[in-house]
Amino acid sequence: MPIITLLTDFGLRDSYVAEMKAVILSICPEACIIDICHEVKKFDIRMGAYLLARTSKYFPKGSIHVAVVDPGVGGTRRPIIVESERAFYVGPDNGLLMLSAEIDGIKHVYMISNERYMLKTVSRTFHGRDIFSPAAAYLARGIPPSEFGPEIHDPTKLSFTKPKISGNIIEGEVIHIDDFGNIITNISIKDLESINIGEGDLLNLETRNLKLKLKLCRSYTEVPHNTPLTIIGSSEFLEISINQGDAAKHFNIKTGDKILLGK
Amino acid sequence: MPIITLLTDFGLRDSYVAEMKAVILSICPEACIIDICHEVKKFDIRMGAYLLARTSKYFPKGSIHVAVVDPGVGGTRRPIIVESERAFYVGPDNGLLMLSAEIDGIKHVYMISNERYMLKTVSRTFHGRDIFSPAAAYLARGIPPSEFGPEIHDPTKLSFTKPKISGNIIEGEVIHIDDFGNIITNISIKDLESINIGEGDLLNLETRNLKLKLKLCRSYTEVPHNTPLTIIGSSEFLEISINQGDAAKHFNIKTGDKILLGK
Amino acid sequence: MPIITLLTDFGLRDSYVAEMKAVILSICPEACIIDICHEVKKFDIRMGAYLLARTSKYFPKGSIHVAVVDPGVGGTRRPIIVESERAFYVGPDNGLLMLSAEIDGIKHVYMISNERYMLKTVSRTFHGRDIFSPAAAYLARGIPPSEFGPEIHDPTKLSFTKPKISGNIIEGEVIHIDDFGNIITNISIKDLESINIGEGDLLNLETRNLKLKLKLCRSYTEVPHNTPLTIIGSSEFLEISINQGDAAKHFNIKTGDKILLGK
Repeated sequence: MPIITLLTDFGLRDSYVAEMKAVILSICPEACIIDICHEVKKFDIRMGAYLLARTSKYFPKGSIHVAVVDPGVGGTRRPIIVESERAFYVGPDNGLLMLSAEIDGIKHVYMISNERYMLKTVSRTFHGRDIFSPAAAYLARGIPPSEFGPEIHDPTKLSFTKPKISGNIIEGEVIHIDDFGNIITNISIKDLESINIGEGDLLNLETRNLKLKLKLCRSYTEVPHNTPLTIIGSSEFLEISINQGDAAKHFNIKTGDKILLGK
Repeated sequence: MPIITLLTDFGLRDSYVAEMKAVILSICPEACIIDICHEVKKFDIRMGAYLLARTSKYFPKGSIHVAVVDPGVGGTRRPIIVESERAFYVGPDNGLLMLSAEIDGIKHVYMISNERYMLKTVSRTFHGRDIFSPAAAYLARGIPPSEFGPEIHDPTKLSFTKPKISGNIIEGEVIHIDDFGNIITNISIKDLESINIGEGDLLNLETRNLKLKLKLCRSYTEVPHNTPLTIIGSSEFLEISINQGDAAKHFNIKTGDKILLGK
Repeated sequence: MPIITLLTDFGLRDSYVAEMKAVILSICPEACIIDICHEVKKFDIRMGAYLLARTSKYFPKGSIHVAVVDPGVGGTRRPIIVESERAFYVGPDNGLLMLSAEIDGIKHVYMISNERYMLKTVSRTFHGRDIFSPAAAYLARGIPPSEFGPEIHDPTKLSFTKPKISGNIIEGEVIHIDDFGNIITNISIKDLESINIGEGDLLNLETRNLKLKLKLCRSYTEVPHNTPLTIIGSSEFLEISINQGDAAKHFNIKTGDKILLGK
C-alpha cells in the first residue's frame, strides 16, 4: 500500500482534511493515509517545514508527503512536486517542502500544470483538495512526476539560521516550542561537542533577560519535579525543559528567540 | 475495502471515537475508517449537517457515513439508515443526515430496530458505539439496509435558509465560520450572477452594525496582508475573509448572522 | 491486518504521533493503526489508564496497544510488554498499562531490553518512537514477546479507589470528566443495586459544598434542557450530567472529588 501523509494548518474543527482524504481515496483506493499534523500555526510555513523534516525521514522510502501551509493559494505561487532521494513531496512552492527534500537530497522539482491530474473544478481557495491531493493519489498510482508538468530549477527555499560559534560561545535560536512546552533550539550535539560540552556539564544560557545555569542531563528525571534542565531532544538538538513542567511558559520564551550558550 | 467515515461532536480528549472504531473493526476488519470531524460544536446538528454535506460528495460511491450529533440519545428519536443514490448514512433521526442525503437523492430511510445488528448491551448514552457503529460495519459486510428494520417515510429534516433576492439586493446568512475565521455564507455563485455580480466587482455588504465595501477577488493575494476581501470559497459559496487574518474575529461575526449584499 | 492502537499525552500540535506511525509502518507495513487518544492530560497516568481500560476491551482479540504517558522516560523505569488474555500492551512500567491488563487477565510481563527490536539510535526523551513503536511493530510481525527481554514479576500497579458502602450510603469518587462535562464516578450499577437504587429513583448526592437531589434517569431527555440528572453512562458507572449542558463546569467538579450518595 502506498503511503500518503498529510500536513496542514487547517485545524481539526472543519472537514477540509477529510475532503482531501476523500479525493485521494477516490483516485487511489489502496492508499494508506497518515496524518502528520493539522495544527500547524496558521500560515506558519517555517513550523510546517520543521515538522515535515523531523518526520518524513522515519517513513518508508517512496512515501508521498502532501503539505499545505499555503497563504499564497490561488495567487502566482506554483504548485509543485519535489522528487527526492527518499520520497515525493507535493504542495505549494513557498519553501514548505524544501527543507525535508534537501535533507533527503533533491532529484527533480516539477510544476503541477497538467489539468488531467487535477479535480475538474479547481477552487480559488483550496488547492489542497483540488490540486495537491489528486497529484499525490496519481503519484501513488505510479504516474511519473514528469507527467504533471515541466521541470523547474528555481524552487523557493527558506533560510534557516544556523548557530554561530565564536570562541567558547554558541549563538543559537529557538526553532520550535512543542506541546509540552519544551524549548527546542537549532544547536546540535556536534555544535556542543565543538566547544567541548557533553552530558553532565553545567551550561550558562542567556535568552531574553534571563541568565540560567542548567545541567545538560541524560534524562528529565535527573532533576527534581518542576526543575529546569537542558537535554538532547529527540531530533538531536538541544532543548530546555522543566521536569514535568512547561519551560516555554515558565521562561516566557517564543520561537525565534536568540540563545547564547557557553560552559 | 469499504469506506466508513465518522463525524461526531465527541471531541478528541476522550476515547469515544476509538471505541466506535474498535466496534467497527471487530465486525468488519477490512473497513477503511476515515474521520471527517469530531470537533463539531456540542449538540450543533446544523454544523454537523453542513460539514457532512460538504464532504460526503467527495467520497467514492457506496461509502458509509456514520454521523453522531445526538442530543436526543436514549430518548424517542429513532436510529436510522438513509440509503441515497451515492452512499449510506447512519445516525440519529434528527436531521443531521438528511441534508447530504437530499443532495445525493434519497432512495430509502430505514429505522434500526433489529437487535441482531447492535452490540449485546446497548447503553443509555452512547448509541454511536452500540447501535450506529455496528450498523455501519454490518452494512460494510453487505447486509442490505432493509434487514435493519422497517422503512420509514417521515424522517426529520432541517430547514436551511435560502437567500432572498429582491431587486439588486441579496439577503443571505452566515452558515459557518471555519477555523481560519473565514465567514462562509449561503450565497452561491448563481445568486451573485442573478444580480450581475462577478469577480472583480466591488460589493456593498451590511451585517450587524457594519457597512463594508469589499472586492470579489479571485485570490486572497489580490489584496495586501491583513486586508478584508470577498471570494468564492471551496464549496462555491461567497466567503468574507481577511488575507492571512481572521475575519470572523475581526468583524465579530457569528453563524446565523444576516448579510445584505448589493453592488 | 494486525491492529496497533496508540494512546499518548503528546497532543496534536506536534509530529510525535506521526513519527511513531512512521516507525511502525517501516517495520510492519500492513499494520492497521488506530488512535485511541492523544489529548491525555500531560503526565496524567491515571487518566491514560482509565481511557485505555474503557477502550481496549472493544478491540478484537490479539490487538496491540501502545500507550505512552511517560514522565520517567530515560530514567530508571522499565519499558515493558504485557501479554494479557486478550491483547498485548506496550509502554512504560508506571501503571499505565496494568489496569487494562488486569481486567483482561495478565499472562506475562516482559521487560524490553533486546536492542535488536529498538531503533538504532534511542533518544533520551522519546521512547514512544524509539522503543515502544518498534516493539509493537515486531509483535505485529509475530515476534514472541519473550524475545524482547526477561520476564518480570513486579510491574508497577496503580491503586484505584473503590467505593465504600456503609449502610445505605455509598462513598465514591470522580474518576473522569469527559469533553461534554459529564462527571463520571467510580460507582457501578452493582454498587447502586446493593443499596436498592434503580432507574427512576431520586438520589441524594453530596460533593464539595453541594447537596443535590437528582433523578437516576434512563435518558438525558427525561429532564428539561439545561437540567441536571444522573444516569448510568456508557462504561456502566454512574454519571452526573446536565441535559445538553456541561455538568462539571456548572458544579465546579474535578477528577478526584469525593461523592456521597444515598436514597
